[in-house]
Amino acid sequence: MGGKILMLILDGVGDRPVEEYGGRTPLEAARTPRLDLLATRGETGLVDPIAPGVRAGSDTAHLALLGYDPYEYYTGRGPFEALGVGMDVKPGDIAFRCNFATVEDRGRELIVTDRRAGRITEGTAALAAAVNGVVIDGVKCLVKESTAHRAALILRGKGLGAVVTDVDPHADGAPVRLAAGGAGTANQKTAAVVNAFVHRSYEALRDHAVNRARVAAGERPANIILPRGGGLAPHIPPFTQRYGVRGAAVVEVGLIRGIARYCGLDVAALPPSVTGGLDSDLGALLGATLSALASHDFVLANIKGADVAGHDGDAAAKISFLEKADEALEGFVGKLPAGTHVAVLGDHSTPVAVQDHSGDAVPIVFYGPAVRPDETATFGERPCAKGGAGRLRGRDVLPILLNLAGWAEKFGA
Amino acid sequence: MGGKILMLILDGVGDRPVEEYGGRTPLEAARTPRLDLLATRGETGLVDPIAPGVRAGSDTAHLALLGYDPYEYYTGRGPFEALGVGMDVKPGDIAFRCNFATVEDRGRELIVTDRRAGRITEGTAALAAAVNGVVIDGVKCLVKESTAHRAALILRGKGLGAVVTDVDPHADGAPVRLAAGGAGTANQKTAAVVNAFVHRSYEALRDHAVNRARVAAGERPANIILPRGGGLAPHIPPFTQRYGVRGAAVVEVGLIRGIARYCGLDVAALPPSVTGGLDSDLGALLGATLSALASHDFVLANIKGADVAGHDGDAAAKISFLEKADEALEGFVGKLPAGTHVAVLGDHSTPVAVQDHSGDAVPIVFYGPAVRPDETATFGERPCAKGGAGRLRGRDVLPILLNLAGWAEKFGA
Repeated sequence: MGGKILMLILDGVGDRPVEEYGGRTPLEAARTPRLDLLATRGETGLVDPIAPGVRAGSDTAHLALLGYDPYEYYTGRGPFEALGVGMDVKPGDIAFRCNFATVEDRGRELIVTDRRAGRITEGTAALAAAVNGVVIDGVKCLVKESTAHRAALILRGKGLGAVVTDVDPHADGAPVRLAAGGAGTANQKTAAVVNAFVHRSYEALRDHAVNRARVAAGERPANIILPRGGGLAPHIPPFTQRYGVRGAAVVEVGLIRGIARYCGLDVAALPPSVTGGLDSDLGALLGATLSALASHDFVLANIKGADVAGHDGDAAAKISFLEKADEALEGFVGKLPAGTHVAVLGDHSTPVAVQDHSGDAVPIVFYGPAVRPDETATFGERPCAKGGAGRLRGRDVLPILLNLAGWAEKFGA
Repeated sequence: MGGKILMLILDGVGDRPVEEYGGRTPLEAARTPRLDLLATRGETGLVDPIAPGVRAGSDTAHLALLGYDPYEYYTGRGPFEALGVGMDVKPGDIAFRCNFATVEDRGRELIVTDRRAGRITEGTAALAAAVNGVVIDGVKCLVKESTAHRAALILRGKGLGAVVTDVDPHADGAPVRLAAGGAGTANQKTAAVVNAFVHRSYEALRDHAVNRARVAAGERPANIILPRGGGLAPHIPPFTQRYGVRGAAVVEVGLIRGIARYCGLDVAALPPSVTGGLDSDLGALLGATLSALASHDFVLANIKGADVAGHDGDAAAKISFLEKADEALEGFVGKLPAGTHVAVLGDHSTPVAVQDHSGDAVPIVFYGPAVRPDETATFGERPCAKGGAGRLRGRDVLPILLNLAGWAEKFGA
């Protein structure tokens, strides 16, 4: 039995020098006295979420931070997209990202006239419901809408393979492709089910009330579902069994919430005020984190806002959000269970100059009674680069915390 | 699409403390204000070309720096020796290092009386031509001379294996060995072809005019070719396809030039004044580098001199060459295409005390608009060890540059 562990992720916190702020990064420019105090009392370093220079997704980064090698467990976009929209993915499922699209029937072929169905924003729940649950050749087809024209598809049944080409032609004006399966009957079966599903989606959606209304309003109908990025939902060894600790996640974002659940973490319910945006109620999020720590050994908490500001390319907003997050941390450490070990870090960089994830290393601070504090007194990319923890990889972070908190098994005698 | 990238390699730059220079390394002792300015404006670190303590060859180091795992792609000395002498190696070739040697016919055996044929320096091109292109059992035997008594042999044909023992007995006074193939018909075929080739080389060279002249002058005849170090030329995924960038190399040394070409880089022609020695025309080399950057996204440039001085064990010459290289860099950075990201580093250490490559880490500096500058203001082993990039491996360098320059693909969502 060890002590409690908190991994607090400031999503997308890492950045590059910003000229308007004297070449400081947003984190360096932000006034963050509470994070700086952690740096003063803790051990700092840099983390490459996957490996130096590799641009991590939120999914692959969180897999790595939870100790799962993403090169082994990340089996394609489909399964993680389905997790992200809250579907109950099961190991062995074959899952796809999908678009609601517009096609025209030209007799022998269905021509994709708009891969995004006029960037439809409403009515997709009803459209998904019209095909959700259909059974083809003994395979259940589960469909759920995501944001805008996006959706996810799960094929659940026996004898399915994951090697199948995309139906989506990836270009407007091209015909819907027939999915082709890789070698073997399992892949062939998946391809046949996908092709039948696409046909069924067209049959179910072409005259759907949502689409009749869209056409009447001069909008393009979302009259077909086009799957792509098929992948096999991975068998992920449950977190609690793998590490011997009861884990929970306090997370604002659907995708990371889905990954946490799939890894066997309990996922905390959060009030609507916890929005995942810049306006998020961080007090409620940190309160839920304390509650989760009361009943669990390990908690992963993710605060999303800095990533949102990074994607928006808004340095001032990123600085302001980091200052808000720092303020929300007032008194927080004092409320942690005695002896808790904490790591505060980014899951990846989202530089405002890039407006997307980059492969730049992120800062980390370890804090707790077993930590060897270093001389760094500021939580920022450059100060942490001089810290005692050196340059780590994302997969190193959890083992370090398990060691500090007394959970690690000895390897050898 | 990303920005331009320059990887500038100071060959063999890394070193150890030299007592005559107060325990400074040659790079630390050299006056290099232009490199120091890069360090001041950039982010520094240390690089283990392969892994800590591993003594890298020029070939394995450059494979790693180009992003190819040498443990996967380095398939023996033979193929890389053949690349080094400028042969057109093709994936699937079986290639060998060879010596021109002197043998005496003692009836049942050929006895090697000098493995280096009196360290022959002239006439080897004619000797190689006498056997180059012979076909044995449908296998083409390509031979090309290298420096002094050295040469390379390529076997090109169907059904050849790479597991074959050396014909070279590795000692004078011993008989020429018969090559023995590993298990399987392919290896057996290679051994048979090698043995037949060695016999053919003796037949072709024993009375060759070059050798008659050598014997008349009291020199040992180079009357046989002895292959060793056989290996399968690897299938290396072309650089441009692998990374999506057009790459070029500006290199003084045949071996690295050959590797660069084999990896799919365009290799720049250089004037004879670019010698690869201490007297090399670095202005011409850097000019060619700028030209290559105008037409390519990525350029690897290699300046050889420091390695030469290291092999010579001459600290003063190494310092003086590094100062010459620094002077040649005057104004260079200002002429780079706007937004270029640069790394200056060694491919390995060649300490003057060792007179050969060592496994000591080498300094690196990253420079460019996306870089987070650190506090290091001197380009040297110890100053760079304190830098923000920490300790990297050779294989990390290209991904970091691709990330900085905006070429990296996101792994995940």
